[in-house]
Amino acid sequence: MAERHDVVDVIKTKRDGGTLSEDQIDWVVDAYTRGVVADEQMSALAMAILLRGMNRAEIARWTQAMIDTGARLDYSGLSRPTADKHSTGGVGDKITLPLAPLVASCGVAVPQLSGRGLGHTGGTLDKLESIPGWRAALSNAEMARQLEEVGAVICSTGTGLAPADKKLYALRDVTGTVEAIPLIASSIMSKKIASGTGSLVLDVKVGSGAFMKNLDDARELARTMVDLGNDAGVKTSALLTDMSTPLGRTIGNGLEVAESLEVLAGGGPADVVDLTLALAREMLAAAGRPDADPEAALTDGRAMDAWRRMIEAQGGDPDAPMPDAPHVEEVRADSDGVITRMDALGVGVAAWRLGAGRARKEDPVQVSAGVRLHKVVGDEVKRGDVIMTLHTETEDRMPRGVAALAEACDGAGTLDITPGGSFSRDIILDSVGALTR
Amino acid sequence: MAERHDVVDVIKTKRDGGTLSEDQIDWVVDAYTRGVVADEQMSALAMAILLRGMNRAEIARWTQAMIDTGARLDYSGLSRPTADKHSTGGVGDKITLPLAPLVASCGVAVPQLSGRGLGHTGGTLDKLESIPGWRAALSNAEMARQLEEVGAVICSTGTGLAPADKKLYALRDVTGTVEAIPLIASSIMSKKIASGTGSLVLDVKVGSGAFMKNLDDARELARTMVDLGNDAGVKTSALLTDMSTPLGRTIGNGLEVAESLEVLAGGGPADVVDLTLALAREMLAAAGRPDADPEAALTDGRAMDAWRRMIEAQGGDPDAPMPDAPHVEEVRADSDGVITRMDALGVGVAAWRLGAGRARKEDPVQVSAGVRLHKVVGDEVKRGDVIMTLHTETEDRMPRGVAALAEACDGAGTLDITPGGSFSRDIILDSVGALTR
Repeated sequence: MAERHDVVDVIKTKRDGGTLSEDQIDWVVDAYTRGVVADEQMSALAMAILLRGMNRAEIARWTQAMIDTGARLDYSGLSRPTADKHSTGGVGDKITLPLAPLVASCGVAVPQLSGRGLGHTGGTLDKLESIPGWRAALSNAEMARQLEEVGAVICSTGTGLAPADKKLYALRDVTGTVEAIPLIASSIMSKKIASGTGSLVLDVKVGSGAFMKNLDDARELARTMVDLGNDAGVKTSALLTDMSTPLGRTIGNGLEVAESLEVLAGGGPADVVDLTLALAREMLAAAGRPDADPEAALTDGRAMDAWRRMIEAQGGDPDAPMPDAPHVEEVRADSDGVITRMDALGVGVAAWRLGAGRARKEDPVQVSAGVRLHKVVGDEVKRGDVIMTLHTETEDRMPRGVAALAEACDGAGTLDITPGGSFSRDIILDSVGALTR
Repeated sequence: MAERHDVVDVIKTKRDGGTLSEDQIDWVVDAYTRGVVADEQMSALAMAILLRGMNRAEIARWTQAMIDTGARLDYSGLSRPTADKHSTGGVGDKITLPLAPLVASCGVAVPQLSGRGLGHTGGTLDKLESIPGWRAALSNAEMARQLEEVGAVICSTGTGLAPADKKLYALRDVTGTVEAIPLIASSIMSKKIASGTGSLVLDVKVGSGAFMKNLDDARELARTMVDLGNDAGVKTSALLTDMSTPLGRTIGNGLEVAESLEVLAGGGPADVVDLTLALAREMLAAAGRPDADPEAALTDGRAMDAWRRMIEAQGGDPDAPMPDAPHVEEVRADSDGVITRMDALGVGVAAWRLGAGRARKEDPVQVSAGVRLHKVVGDEVKRGDVIMTLHTETEDRMPRGVAALAEACDGAGTLDITPGGSFSRDIILDSVGALTR
């Protein structure tokens, strides 16, 4: 069958700084998914988009075209409103684990499609798979039933949603075209819109451990995604949050499950609790429950109950203890002072090297590997104090974890200890379209 | 074996406006030729080069890296100096045919590696293959022997020269990355430098029928190629010549051979003779024969003698007549006036549709198809005068040739006849590094 466009003309339009027509976008996304547009043609187009940009209408159409290559879920028949959260990924970011049951316990259903980790950022599914018996893959029918009965589900994204995105993301990864805001935004939002949520809160991370290294880029990405969601009928807002240093005191799969349980039991590190509550309030407001009290739900056990039901519904044992790593090494302060820097990227790479993360998507991850922080930024330390412990299941990985800490940020090292120094940290740096701020 | 660079880092360097290192360039060109760098990665890099550019040192290194993927011929042992010519391609551009034997007859050897046509521009080999028995493919040893004995050889480029270029050009053709001056220049010059010529004159065409549509772009391409050649030790200069209207009075394979024979016999259209002589003088000067008299060689039969020996050496019959096309149709003036426009692209596409050219490189071409101009720009015509005749071997192509003339240049048509108008044409518009101008 004759094609209605010539891909070289589409590429040249964007290459020369023009605007792609709606029909060009619809065609090229569909034709790429069908294999009529070849990888080498799409990568040239992706580079042209990266360097020439796309306007708001082009990005919206591109996103819709990716959605149209697959199925779209629909939870409008559910008895409760729905709200979802997406994080652009960070180090120690286990927020989804306490957040989903917390929001569910306040009367809003959370249909959360998650992924696995790659590189120095962990994946929510990897963390939950530390729980014996828990399974990530659910059918659409199982997902709908669990949403109605439990109110929260965290599971893997089926291949049915936006298949164009899966193919395009793999291509961008090997062609230096990941860092295009129109393509990042449409990749995230196509899956989230297709997943059928009524509202969505974005946690856009900023800092060394995040994809976006500075606030201006993060704001542009957040604004683009918020517009995309609202234009597509999903009530969307974004918080921009700090990722210059790890979130919480644990980095690693089982370690982060244990910390999430502390939060669900009413304790846990202040930064994790604060961010969990801020995101919960925003999700509840977006879903029409502005008067819900998530703080109470953490302390009175309702959130923990929802967690237990959510884990059990997917075959997991909520009472199974997280295993300790067989190999643990301490990192101690080499001087007196205040910790003024603990680089998120350095700690994230260390955890990855220790076995918590993977370099290729087919690699396994370790349950008990990672980093536990005994001190964090702003803490005063004496020479010889234990700042962190490194955990691994395979002894030969230990030196690689130690080396990652020393080499972080072009050899600058992960830690700064400043005599007489001080440090204060804001978790939430800015917001776009937020209802609660 | 581990590779010494990561292609994604190389792509990002150029994407972000940086300069590629010599080692990055050497590696990426070689790794692409070996298949370690994939097509989708090279096309992303090509788009980044197109949009970000390359500096003179990068282009020189890229060209050298492409040469280094293959063999390099060497004619330094020849008893005569060598000079070559390259045209960027036009409509009715048969100059190589009279030029090579003409220069040879003046004591300078011409080792001309040529190609076949694609699209609306014809190919020198296609034209010469109109001569019964003539063969384009020679071994390196046959080529060297013919250069010594006859002084001129026109043959196909073997696969041994710059194989990276062959692979890269095919990729650029389908990914919208042809129009990058660094890549155009390095593509042309890698083959010319590898072919072992001592000097080189470039005929950079400008106008509707040429790849370069305006003088500024053509000048930049010419300057880039002249620098590349001279930096690599090949004495190189360029003439920028008009391609707004066809060259000579014939477009088509056999038709152009017949016109070339008129020039070699001391006649032929003025524009073809003028350009042939200008290029011959430049080649002779570059090769150290500034006092040679090519004009005399055309009129006294020496050039024709060299032509006959050149054709015979490659198995061709120099006395075979060119066949007439079985189907001929006249295009007549629809008003009185002066022809003020005869668009090169329109006439070129018409000749292509009639069977003189090909759309895919495996298509055959017709010997007798094409266009003969009975009037050219500047000529006065009366309504009903025959302006051109269209020739084809397959009758069903005739309407497509007629339509191409009418639709040329976004439907504007190929011909303008202006009452009381006038038109004067300069063939040579400018030069870069020329010795004789």
